[in-house]
Amino acid sequence: MLSKNTIKHIQSLRLKKFRQKYRKFVVEGEKMALEILQSTELELEGLYALPEWLEKYQAQLIVASSKIHSLSAKDLERISSLKTPNKVVVVCNIPTYSLELPVLNNSLTLFLDGIQDPGNMGSILRIADWFGLPYVFCSLGCVDIYNPKVIQSSMGAFLRVKPIAIEITDLQSQCPDLNIFAAVLDGLNVFTTKLPKNGLLVIGNEGNGISELVRAAANYQIMIPKGQEGGAESLNAAVATGILCSALLNR
Amino acid sequence: MLSKNTIKHIQSLRLKKFRQKYRKFVVEGEKMALEILQSTELELEGLYALPEWLEKYQAQLIVASSKIHSLSAKDLERISSLKTPNKVVVVCNIPTYSLELPVLNNSLTLFLDGIQDPGNMGSILRIADWFGLPYVFCSLGCVDIYNPKVIQSSMGAFLRVKPIAIEITDLQSQCPDLNIFAAVLDGLNVFTTKLPKNGLLVIGNEGNGISELVRAAANYQIMIPKGQEGGAESLNAAVATGILCSALLNR
Repeated sequence: MLSKNTIKHIQSLRLKKFRQKYRKFVVEGEKMALEILQSTELELEGLYALPEWLEKYQAQLIVASSKIHSLSAKDLERISSLKTPNKVVVVCNIPTYSLELPVLNNSLTLFLDGIQDPGNMGSILRIADWFGLPYVFCSLGCVDIYNPKVIQSSMGAFLRVKPIAIEITDLQSQCPDLNIFAAVLDGLNVFTTKLPKNGLLVIGNEGNGISELVRAAANYQIMIPKGQEGGAESLNAAVATGILCSALLNR
Repeated sequence: MLSKNTIKHIQSLRLKKFRQKYRKFVVEGEKMALEILQSTELELEGLYALPEWLEKYQAQLIVASSKIHSLSAKDLERISSLKTPNKVVVVCNIPTYSLELPVLNNSLTLFLDGIQDPGNMGSILRIADWFGLPYVFCSLGCVDIYNPKVIQSSMGAFLRVKPIAIEITDLQSQCPDLNIFAAVLDGLNVFTTKLPKNGLLVIGNEGNGISELVRAAANYQIMIPKGQEGGAESLNAAVATGILCSALLNR
């Protein structure tokens, strides 16, 4: 049985305020739990699971046995933030990633300028993971990467992608030669324009696009060309991120 | 004031059963309401709005004055399926689109094989609208295009894109020479393989991918190449759709 304090602690991590205070976040789901056990980047604080799950994965759990806790279905419901709780809830320390300038300069990376929707943020982390982008930078106005909905929709991408919360001016002062591509609705055709191979691709907020501050910092304003009969005003932010990354990487 | 029957009728359209029975669906939001008034494809059954909204858009509303109804904020809450209702709710007839084979044969089009998430469906409609794809075919296992969440997240794309519910075998029997591209995780690199320009791009279900039936029907199995350091198991279905459409169209 879990103590009231443990339950309260885990529940508190639904809020950004407490995730930042304790530097911890929650992950739910069998597959991600097993991946975390094998991760060298993430440090486990505790794993809370139904007895049948613990029994099934005994062998994998040995590495962290002191941090494994059995719990009842009722307690699982209490600590889960899912409508239909899975069998296991994991609490991890939020990792701190340092920025390696040579890696940054020789890669395509992302800067998210105020992405608000957790589902979009999760999808974008999956894109970064799929293409192996070393960093995803997030402006301070973005939804928190460690928000439970982001973590769920990232499908484990947070285990490999390194998110760093930073403002673009700070990033530029650390790395002044960085090429910056701003995704806009009226820029250069990303498929036909000769562009440098590496750089920082900036994706704007779902409703307002890229802020003036960031637009002014960009070397290239790029866009996804519309079809002849195209009518939509914009694409979903994660969809646009996927198209631009794939276009920049496959030239 | 709205009659109880009108309120019940509009509420019933939250369910697919009643949308299919009455061949009607609901759209909420000021921008989409104004677009519907100008649409030549969609037939309006009724527009229900707060008095201040009706006053503001008097001029645009003349075209449909007999179908315009003023309502109270309380009734708006009753008929809206949004947490925070907008100022206007529209009921439209579900259009029936006919299939023009020459258009189908000379275009890129989409076939959605069991897409379940309303947000993904809405994002995919936006992609089809952006690139001007003439048709989006949906297997009978897909979430209903006229589901309120799909309509909201399509951002008006349903006004221009023509969705048709059909099974792939029926489509093939109507159009036997159609090139079929199946999006898979282990196919031909869409960026480097020579592929025909036109055809039907098939996108599978979020969890299970493309069904065996559809895979067997495909002429080409294509994929989005992973990055060298790429780790994710898959991309979000709407993101994958966007990347594949843009890659097929920009060659």
